[in-house]
Amino acid sequence: MNIGRAASRLLSTMYRDSGTNLASLSPAQIKTWLDSFDTVLTDCDGVIWVDNEPLSHATDVINKFIDNGKKLFFVTNNSTKTRPEFVTKAVNLGFNVGVDNIISTAYLAAQYLKAKKFNKKVYVIGTTGITRELEAVGIEHIGVGPDNLQGTLVDAVHGFSPDPEVGAVIVGFDEHFSFVKMMKAATYLNDPEVIFIGTNTDERFPLPDRVIPGTGSIVNAVTTCTERPPTVMGKPNKYICDILEQQYKVNPERTLMIGDRCNTDILLGKNCGFQTLLVETGIHKAEDVAKFAQSDDPETRKLVPDVYSGMLGDLLPYL
Amino acid sequence: MNIGRAASRLLSTMYRDSGTNLASLSPAQIKTWLDSFDTVLTDCDGVIWVDNEPLSHATDVINKFIDNGKKLFFVTNNSTKTRPEFVTKAVNLGFNVGVDNIISTAYLAAQYLKAKKFNKKVYVIGTTGITRELEAVGIEHIGVGPDNLQGTLVDAVHGFSPDPEVGAVIVGFDEHFSFVKMMKAATYLNDPEVIFIGTNTDERFPLPDRVIPGTGSIVNAVTTCTERPPTVMGKPNKYICDILEQQYKVNPERTLMIGDRCNTDILLGKNCGFQTLLVETGIHKAEDVAKFAQSDDPETRKLVPDVYSGMLGDLLPYL
Repeated sequence: MNIGRAASRLLSTMYRDSGTNLASLSPAQIKTWLDSFDTVLTDCDGVIWVDNEPLSHATDVINKFIDNGKKLFFVTNNSTKTRPEFVTKAVNLGFNVGVDNIISTAYLAAQYLKAKKFNKKVYVIGTTGITRELEAVGIEHIGVGPDNLQGTLVDAVHGFSPDPEVGAVIVGFDEHFSFVKMMKAATYLNDPEVIFIGTNTDERFPLPDRVIPGTGSIVNAVTTCTERPPTVMGKPNKYICDILEQQYKVNPERTLMIGDRCNTDILLGKNCGFQTLLVETGIHKAEDVAKFAQSDDPETRKLVPDVYSGMLGDLLPYL
Repeated sequence: MNIGRAASRLLSTMYRDSGTNLASLSPAQIKTWLDSFDTVLTDCDGVIWVDNEPLSHATDVINKFIDNGKKLFFVTNNSTKTRPEFVTKAVNLGFNVGVDNIISTAYLAAQYLKAKKFNKKVYVIGTTGITRELEAVGIEHIGVGPDNLQGTLVDAVHGFSPDPEVGAVIVGFDEHFSFVKMMKAATYLNDPEVIFIGTNTDERFPLPDRVIPGTGSIVNAVTTCTERPPTVMGKPNKYICDILEQQYKVNPERTLMIGDRCNTDILLGKNCGFQTLLVETGIHKAEDVAKFAQSDDPETRKLVPDVYSGMLGDLLPYL
């Protein structure tokens, strides 16, 4: 048992940052590699499902990981859903997961403030995905919902009475984002004691003939007028490691991060010392990995995963 | 005459980037320096007026420059007023200026498109300050005014029919800026042929107890979700030099840029090869100049003006 573990440790180290194609490994090598981690973190969209459709055999692979005793977490930058809402979606698609299997940026933001024993109010640019997580830890909030300019800008400025109880601003995805919300956030954040949290910095969601701005657009707008950077909860930022290590006693070296996007998912893995697996059912593909590997820039080379494979379902025969 | 001009040229070169205190010069030196330029560009707010109050003797100095035969331009990053609207304000405050004395970012944006013989429509995030300048050069536009989310985000995405005639997006100051406007701009700009113009990148207008986000916040939001940079019209960007040289036959070497902010006004001067004067009635002061001069970073040292003085009115005795 100890020898097997030592061997798998050696093997996992061998693959580190190597951009190895899973298909080039023997079944024995794959099994040893699978034994080299006991925690699995996975991105959702583009890895286990696309919108409301699970990807081929992804459900089986995730459920097998759980059956085999691995700790499993869905790790998502989406701040618009609470953890119970994610569970509902996942269970409906056949995944055997509960609330403790979900790490979302809204949850992380609430945990971050709870850990600081924060006892003031939060001004939220975001949705009920954030406010319900705050309520779950007993933190008051204001700001959610439409807040558009009524009358002139001068009216809006004079009509705004900042709430002296506000001690933090959380900026997440908000389809009601407006100039007025930005003015309020910037005014609160002008006090350097007020905590500034961004859920994530994803730039955009490109649809075939539309572009939906991502949270990063909103965060950058607020960052520009506040002239100070937020603490960002989401991938690829390291904050998530603290929660996983402190709350779930996860060992980074024996943890695998799975994703479809190298500059969030794989980079999170690198930033936290996790092993990494890229699947090609979303943003980045084998040719991107080859390009990253050839870069002269060490920051770009960080985007190379340990291992890549066409899809998560490829692991099923070995589980 | 030629000897005087050669002397003033030598003198103006002596002051270049030197951060010289005007008060340290003799009256004769000041007069020679004043002879070393025949075009004067000046920022408005913080230099000649603050809000609706002219600064002490600023009106006299500007009118004397004009009487003495210097070409004079007010150069402003404010995109919310047309040139005629600026003239109305300036004339009411006693300045003897007309439309040809005003260079605003809205005007520059319209001129930029006119120079490209642009014949499509512009999607505008901004105010009538921009749209009236477009109308003045016969360019059609859409988008100005409130445009907030009605119903759900899905409704907004499905309800949006991009206008195939749109060939440019201009982003300026817009108190009605919203998520919906950002989604539309990003969708138009997803076509790499669509021109992307930002009027300016000023971050914020701090009031005593409120922060008003500047155009830079809106430009950065749109830049993030379009994933490409705009062509920026305003200070400190060089585009203004092209207009001044082509349209007004200005000689950069014999041009003085006056401002209160080193990272816009003075930097514009450096970027265009103008002489520069900082006045201390706005953002930056003598102690900032001293700090910039001591920096190890050549980009920071660019912020040092040729000459600085307490206020524009200090020049009056020499005119």
